[in-house]
Amino acid sequence: MRRRGSLKWDRYDPSVLPCWVADMDFDMADPIRRAVAGLSAAGAFHYPLRRSRPPDRLVADAFAERMEKRYAWSVDPDCTLVVTDLVQALYAAVTALTRKGEGVAVQVPTYPPFRGAIEDTGRQVLAWPANPGPGGYGWDLGWFSQDPRPPAKLLILCNPHNPTGRMLGRKELSELADHVVRNDLIVVADEIHADIVYDGRVHIPFASLGPEVSRRTVTLQSATKSFGIPGVRCAVMHFGSRALLERFTAVVHPRLLGQCGIVGIEATLAAWRDGQEWFEAVLAHLQGMRDYVCAVLRAEMPEIRLHPPQATYLAWLDCSAMALDRPAGDFFLHQAKVAFSAGQTFDPQSSPFVRMNFATSTTIIDEILDRMRQAIRHR
Amino acid sequence: MRRRGSLKWDRYDPSVLPCWVADMDFDMADPIRRAVAGLSAAGAFHYPLRRSRPPDRLVADAFAERMEKRYAWSVDPDCTLVVTDLVQALYAAVTALTRKGEGVAVQVPTYPPFRGAIEDTGRQVLAWPANPGPGGYGWDLGWFSQDPRPPAKLLILCNPHNPTGRMLGRKELSELADHVVRNDLIVVADEIHADIVYDGRVHIPFASLGPEVSRRTVTLQSATKSFGIPGVRCAVMHFGSRALLERFTAVVHPRLLGQCGIVGIEATLAAWRDGQEWFEAVLAHLQGMRDYVCAVLRAEMPEIRLHPPQATYLAWLDCSAMALDRPAGDFFLHQAKVAFSAGQTFDPQSSPFVRMNFATSTTIIDEILDRMRQAIRHR
Repeated sequence: MRRRGSLKWDRYDPSVLPCWVADMDFDMADPIRRAVAGLSAAGAFHYPLRRSRPPDRLVADAFAERMEKRYAWSVDPDCTLVVTDLVQALYAAVTALTRKGEGVAVQVPTYPPFRGAIEDTGRQVLAWPANPGPGGYGWDLGWFSQDPRPPAKLLILCNPHNPTGRMLGRKELSELADHVVRNDLIVVADEIHADIVYDGRVHIPFASLGPEVSRRTVTLQSATKSFGIPGVRCAVMHFGSRALLERFTAVVHPRLLGQCGIVGIEATLAAWRDGQEWFEAVLAHLQGMRDYVCAVLRAEMPEIRLHPPQATYLAWLDCSAMALDRPAGDFFLHQAKVAFSAGQTFDPQSSPFVRMNFATSTTIIDEILDRMRQAIRHR
Repeated sequence: MRRRGSLKWDRYDPSVLPCWVADMDFDMADPIRRAVAGLSAAGAFHYPLRRSRPPDRLVADAFAERMEKRYAWSVDPDCTLVVTDLVQALYAAVTALTRKGEGVAVQVPTYPPFRGAIEDTGRQVLAWPANPGPGGYGWDLGWFSQDPRPPAKLLILCNPHNPTGRMLGRKELSELADHVVRNDLIVVADEIHADIVYDGRVHIPFASLGPEVSRRTVTLQSATKSFGIPGVRCAVMHFGSRALLERFTAVVHPRLLGQCGIVGIEATLAAWRDGQEWFEAVLAHLQGMRDYVCAVLRAEMPEIRLHPPQATYLAWLDCSAMALDRPAGDFFLHQAKVAFSAGQTFDPQSSPFVRMNFATSTTIIDEILDRMRQAIRHR
């Protein structure tokens, strides 16, 4: 893995095994590889046009086709912008759809750039805390009525949720949707883990819950997470109504967002259209890894508690029962030579947590679990 | 060429020969092809890290190294942002460095998105008209003192100039620099054609004219034009002082600009570091094509006037002596089946002009010239 020159494998000392950043250790799907090789073999990376259409339009069409097929959710390709990445989309949505000083609610723990998108644009972070329950983490709607100041104007909804691996079901989403409509909130729904769901679950796009929900929702999607190609940089922003798109572009002109390169476009098209077979095999492996990691932790490291992730290849490990004298991430990095994502980067209160990425081989996960076991034993 | 799926070759009917959009008809340099093939062969497009550094930093370093080597211009890589494209950079610079309603000067004729960047962001276009002179087109500084309303706050300087192929020399640039400093203007200098200069000329970066000039100049550069890889989307914004960079990022956060994909990064690094031999051969060919096109037009189509381009692979053809009853672009598209860029897209007054792209093979240029000759004869 190290020869690939990736952030995941090269940030730490070679003695450290990485299971931090959300990037899988698998080779990409053959259709993607062929699409990229074909581009390169054709001689040059020209200004692209494909089948008489601008490439962004092809991505928008492929996105619409996929949402219809997988979720019976009809989206309008004309209300779709292609951007380079999810974080860019968040900065753009917060900038365009709220004003400085306004409140933006975000589930906590949260992927760190979400907080950055709120703070860097001069908005106020309203941290909506997770409550552990028997079915996993949840977010209580009662929190909104505890009068956060300033009131939330926009909610960043991450579902399936990073880092907890929780997938909200229809009942929770419907209750949230009612609340959102009643309180006239805008929702930016990060659904880039929608494919990676276990035990036969099916993701429900938030915007699919009805026209009143859709018209206030910006949905973020990308092939890069499911298909292990984050380096290409290509993501989609879907606006649930033309009015919402126009409200956005009146502040953030699409050309300010730049353009996705032709390789990102072609890789995305190949992934969405021809990569499903590869993905199904990867998903089966990931579900096996999830089961295995959960079983080993439960049996051999009961100090570490977790709710088995329902989705994503991430697990949110609660190490508070270990009563460590330092953040759990530091402990494992130095004592186990295992690099997790540190809990406190997702929530200042969560230093006894780490986020584990189990999208790797059995061999590597066994070595990681073994190192963890040893470190816990000798602490 | 048509099998490549490019904008240039696929926008028009197959009966039409394209010499419009600024994209070359040549295969890319082997070092670029190898770099991209290497990425793909490594298995996947992960979140990148290269030689322990974030990839944007490598591009900034390669840019600094190249500016030093080619123009003896020292730039600070810390004051460099990597973006996806020149047009994005322009929208961002105009947004961040001027206010709504303010005046932005731009040389006319102008690459159409420059005008778009001014109008779409709610600023006012101040069209600085070209004057044909014996040495080619020039822009008279006296225009600024004719009191344009509102006064210019920012100047978009395109040098070498698209579409006229004019390269401003030291004397003109120095006079402009004096004016800019005296009037406290910000300059956004599009210098992406800097490599493509003929007859032994050497491009002078505007920001290299001194610290007072540099600290008010944003320079835009990219490998995509010189190396024929516009599809990868990768460009550089260099701020001549940290204060200017900070003024920019206070309004436009870098994350709002997204990220360049790993293929754009690696292709740019390969081009700038290892592509020079390829480029020198292409430049020699382009100079030969320029000489040939100018000679044929002068000898056989005297109705078409032009100032031989000093730089760029673009020629600005003045067809006003033909006294056509429609825009020259329309005439050649329909009567010659040759697609130029229409003059009026660069300047509403310029419908008797077309922009010709001569970055192609002798065979194709001969066919283009032949079709033009026939159309003129039978008009």
